[in-house]
Amino acid sequence: MKKLMNAPEALVADWLDGFAAAHADLVVMAPGRKYLRRREPARSKVVLISGGGSGHEPLHAGFVGRGMLDAACPGQIFTSPTPDQIVEAAQELAGEAGALFIVKNYAGDRMNFEMAAELATCRNETLLVDDDVSDEGTTGGMGRRGVAGTMIVEKLLGAAAESGADLEACLALGEKAKARTRSIGVALSHCTLPTGSERPYGLGPDEMELGVGIHGEPGRRKVKLARADEIAEQLVGAIVGDLASPKLEEALLLINGFGGTPLIELYVMYNSARRALERRGVKVVRSLVGNFVTSLDMTGCSITVSLVDPEMITLWDSPVRTAALRW
Amino acid sequence: MKKLMNAPEALVADWLDGFAAAHADLVVMAPGRKYLRRREPARSKVVLISGGGSGHEPLHAGFVGRGMLDAACPGQIFTSPTPDQIVEAAQELAGEAGALFIVKNYAGDRMNFEMAAELATCRNETLLVDDDVSDEGTTGGMGRRGVAGTMIVEKLLGAAAESGADLEACLALGEKAKARTRSIGVALSHCTLPTGSERPYGLGPDEMELGVGIHGEPGRRKVKLARADEIAEQLVGAIVGDLASPKLEEALLLINGFGGTPLIELYVMYNSARRALERRGVKVVRSLVGNFVTSLDMTGCSITVSLVDPEMITLWDSPVRTAALRW
Repeated sequence: MKKLMNAPEALVADWLDGFAAAHADLVVMAPGRKYLRRREPARSKVVLISGGGSGHEPLHAGFVGRGMLDAACPGQIFTSPTPDQIVEAAQELAGEAGALFIVKNYAGDRMNFEMAAELATCRNETLLVDDDVSDEGTTGGMGRRGVAGTMIVEKLLGAAAESGADLEACLALGEKAKARTRSIGVALSHCTLPTGSERPYGLGPDEMELGVGIHGEPGRRKVKLARADEIAEQLVGAIVGDLASPKLEEALLLINGFGGTPLIELYVMYNSARRALERRGVKVVRSLVGNFVTSLDMTGCSITVSLVDPEMITLWDSPVRTAALRW
Repeated sequence: MKKLMNAPEALVADWLDGFAAAHADLVVMAPGRKYLRRREPARSKVVLISGGGSGHEPLHAGFVGRGMLDAACPGQIFTSPTPDQIVEAAQELAGEAGALFIVKNYAGDRMNFEMAAELATCRNETLLVDDDVSDEGTTGGMGRRGVAGTMIVEKLLGAAAESGADLEACLALGEKAKARTRSIGVALSHCTLPTGSERPYGLGPDEMELGVGIHGEPGRRKVKLARADEIAEQLVGAIVGDLASPKLEEALLLINGFGGTPLIELYVMYNSARRALERRGVKVVRSLVGNFVTSLDMTGCSITVSLVDPEMITLWDSPVRTAALRW
């Protein structure tokens, strides 16, 4: 295991310090590295707060800024942030419009955000994202995992909150976006933790993990490595099979790399996935390709499809100014 | 070797098709995949044309768009584009203001761009970029390699051309930016070619390649893997030692990943490099962190330092709208 770091126990602090320094025009780090917030707080609108374990960069820190998140609370590697981090961010940033917590569906994140929601004295609501169609077995019986679809929900909600939507409207939009968004991933190799331990889900030299989670959790099954077109056909088939309604018409297609896969391969997958969708009558009207919701150095990618309506397209196209997403 | 692709011989075509489809709002692919050009041609200004072997994505295709390149000519993996690709792009796009070819200093690229410069009937000039301080041994005796500093030169020139600078002014700016820009890289593992062959420069399990090239070429030496702070100290030392003049004052710092290294590690390196520069009295006033000039799936990164003056800062901050760089 080789990583560019000073020590396993310094990795999260060093990355956060580097990120805050590189993007000082966009974000400010709170004392004790409890959360990153946007440089110019916007107390009059609903504030959007997310967070989760580190190891998924740029999620969530890279999405803090105008038009997306107000704050991100980072945990240690693959470990939920603590309730006090979330409470402090909410109390510091939320005004009368309240706070919306955007939470990926994992036991630790749910528990700590639930505790924070109770402890915070500001008005707040919580949106659980659970877009992974692959498996229900790794969230402690709490349903599907939240994966790359989370960033789509965060972008849409960011635009809505910026335009003045209230807490109820944000929550309703979040539920709608969730209902129309599905993801599934494939790993060609698993990630290595900074301490050197590999995730214990061995993959043979000609195997891939279909339906892998963003912590390297096993998915539906290990299968033989296949051509990009065949992989995309399987992943898109699983997504579309799960998205029975609403109508399959226009979609946003996100190809998300897991951290160790270069762009050239992600665009190959985009090309394959787009054609697999078109064969099913789905027109891709918005696209995003890159490493956004990663699993340390895992190789592979996930496909996310979000069925968009005109409201969602307008929100997607609205200006965003963050380190990892900007237009 | 596991890659998301259909076949080694289809990799470049599939990535280009995916890229052109995903970014159809920004770029258009020329017939025969000879070049990618910006969607709205701008014939009244100097047109900037770059290109080179594939395997370095998003370079150069990801930098085509308003405020940066007018066209990018892609070769096969690690292989220069052919002169006819460059000639066609230039003749199709250049008006009276002429074309500037931005060329990374490698024997194949130089030869083919030189041939194109002679064959093209439009007015044209060539800027060779050679920012790699590590080694002079792998360019066929033609000096230093052109690496990640190329994208800084392309961004600055893009802004200048957009604002109406003529061909001579663009060339002069390019020479100035080159003179103030240096890079050096380190690899923790070498890249694998799509055909399955690894680059023949073996690295032990506890070694790294200091001064590696963007095709995995060996650099100054193989050394023991070190802490991020120590690596940054060595790389920044090599760069600053080479940048005797102009005055070491304000800098743009680019941490560029080689394709297989996730963002969390790149920001750790940014944090280390920034402090190494500050210890030498250099203030980092602009920053960029990400995988921009890659070497397929190689792990590791390069550090680029560009000593900026007010003119360069203004050009850097000017709007840019490309797939890989946008503000």
